[in-house]
Amino acid sequence: MDIVKKIFYRDRYALSKAISIIENREDGYLDILKDIYKNTGKSHVIGITGPPGVGKSTLIAELAQEFVSQGKYVGIIAIDPTSPFSGGAILGDRIRMNDLELNKNVFIRSMATRGGIGGIATTTRNIIRLMEGFQMDVIIVETVGTGQADVDIINVAETVAVVLSPNLGDDIQTLKAGMLEIGDIFIINKIDIEGADEAIAYLENMISIAKYPYKEWMPVVIGTSALKKMGIKELVDAIYQHKKNLSASKGIPKRNERVLQYEMEGIIYDEFMNRMRYMMEHDPETKELMTEVYNKNIDPYTASQKILEKVIDKNKFNGK
Amino acid sequence: MDIVKKIFYRDRYALSKAISIIENREDGYLDILKDIYKNTGKSHVIGITGPPGVGKSTLIAELAQEFVSQGKYVGIIAIDPTSPFSGGAILGDRIRMNDLELNKNVFIRSMATRGGIGGIATTTRNIIRLMEGFQMDVIIVETVGTGQADVDIINVAETVAVVLSPNLGDDIQTLKAGMLEIGDIFIINKIDIEGADEAIAYLENMISIAKYPYKEWMPVVIGTSALKKMGIKELVDAIYQHKKNLSASKGIPKRNERVLQYEMEGIIYDEFMNRMRYMMEHDPETKELMTEVYNKNIDPYTASQKILEKVIDKNKFNGK
Repeated sequence: MDIVKKIFYRDRYALSKAISIIENREDGYLDILKDIYKNTGKSHVIGITGPPGVGKSTLIAELAQEFVSQGKYVGIIAIDPTSPFSGGAILGDRIRMNDLELNKNVFIRSMATRGGIGGIATTTRNIIRLMEGFQMDVIIVETVGTGQADVDIINVAETVAVVLSPNLGDDIQTLKAGMLEIGDIFIINKIDIEGADEAIAYLENMISIAKYPYKEWMPVVIGTSALKKMGIKELVDAIYQHKKNLSASKGIPKRNERVLQYEMEGIIYDEFMNRMRYMMEHDPETKELMTEVYNKNIDPYTASQKILEKVIDKNKFNGK
Repeated sequence: MDIVKKIFYRDRYALSKAISIIENREDGYLDILKDIYKNTGKSHVIGITGPPGVGKSTLIAELAQEFVSQGKYVGIIAIDPTSPFSGGAILGDRIRMNDLELNKNVFIRSMATRGGIGGIATTTRNIIRLMEGFQMDVIIVETVGTGQADVDIINVAETVAVVLSPNLGDDIQTLKAGMLEIGDIFIINKIDIEGADEAIAYLENMISIAKYPYKEWMPVVIGTSALKKMGIKELVDAIYQHKKNLSASKGIPKRNERVLQYEMEGIIYDEFMNRMRYMMEHDPETKELMTEVYNKNIDPYTASQKILEKVIDKNKFNGK
């Protein structure tokens, strides 16, 4: 049985192996991605983002447990370098994660730093695809929300949840840096500590004055305490509600089209860059041009235009 | 007098105007970049990175003051969304920044969120170039060090300083996420608070066991307190020492070549993506192909290859 079929029949080892093949672009990686494509598109991809220290990982662990208790298969992809899923954070967190990892309905994968060959965005999309091929019901992608993440979470996730702490003052820059616009659901985690009510009210006010592209959905604010297992069911309900709402409206097709175009641009980009880099390293004329730029005899814009024309002109291109 | 000449003669208004033209890609932006290129390459570009809250901005303000007191011209580019230079952080910081901004030898520019058209990396490089054309002696680029910044600071800076607080436990993920490898100088800021000596010793130990690409330079650890103006002169000395060392070794040409290749790849990439997006939106065959992928009749990898071939084949390409 080939690896794609094994993944479809929920062989965890095959999934794990395929992810490594894709991350390292080993022989046959493209065939796996091509074959698996027809089985994809049915998982609900949820992006969880927010600044470090707000308890994203613990929350994700609880969220996964809740989904599992409903009989669902859950994939988790951690791109946050501070995440315990990624080997970061403190020992207590690691142990909690390990419990989760033992559950056969949960598959956790953390991204290697810098995301392997092709960059974090491409690798994330490919891992999502493999998990979709495994028939995951839910795929949770954890990123650190600095507002400048390598992965634009809205380009891979259908539902985006932004996690903040009641100590909103520290997180306000996160909101400023674009997070307010991308959140479908806002979570104030650690609601048992002081200031939670004020933080929720403040956030709801900010949402009421912000502008959102999809008028069908107004972001909601949920209070949770992952450590005390509070608010998790409410969060799951909100996630379902958002999904239902997107399906009823034109939201999902629109998002999916955008995600697909973004993905294809990435694939084309990778291939193009490979050709260009090959030329920069092997084509004598191109190398000469680089030296001229280096010596300031020609500016990089004029030189780049010439190189682009060479890559684009098949007859002049001697690359692989 | 044209704008490039005005910039060369240190006209602050012209510099400010040119930066806006470049950020927004207004008419003539490419001519400015082409013209200014011959005047570039003489500034010392220093990258300052590190997690939020370690006092990067206050340190940069003190560093700039020290350079200015030595008669130097200093450009500052803030890409960190949490930076007071970028309008973030608390009021006290803003006021301190404003003092600095009044100094005629200092020019501060914060990047618009998401860096304007062309992305943060491209825009940063272009602003550096304009500041070089202004004959800045030193250009300081401030980024937030999450290990996944949009700007790979080593691709724009000759000297990279990583700022950490004595409370290293919180910052250890930053080091794990690649910061240990890129720092030429490590700064423990707030050395007046507890744990500073231990943090310095710990860092020095980590450096001694890490591997660095340039054997000519072993990273140094400097203790500073920006608020109490401690260690600033030592930091400046370390920066000079690193520059001197790079100049004496083959370090600078190697770095500059890498930086230039990285930049040209960016320029070529932008142009290529413009053509590709134009085709995706306007070419009927390409649009049909996208629909087929969307309906899962063809996988995105096969389709992307076809689109790439169309972009590369001049005769088939009907774009602008």
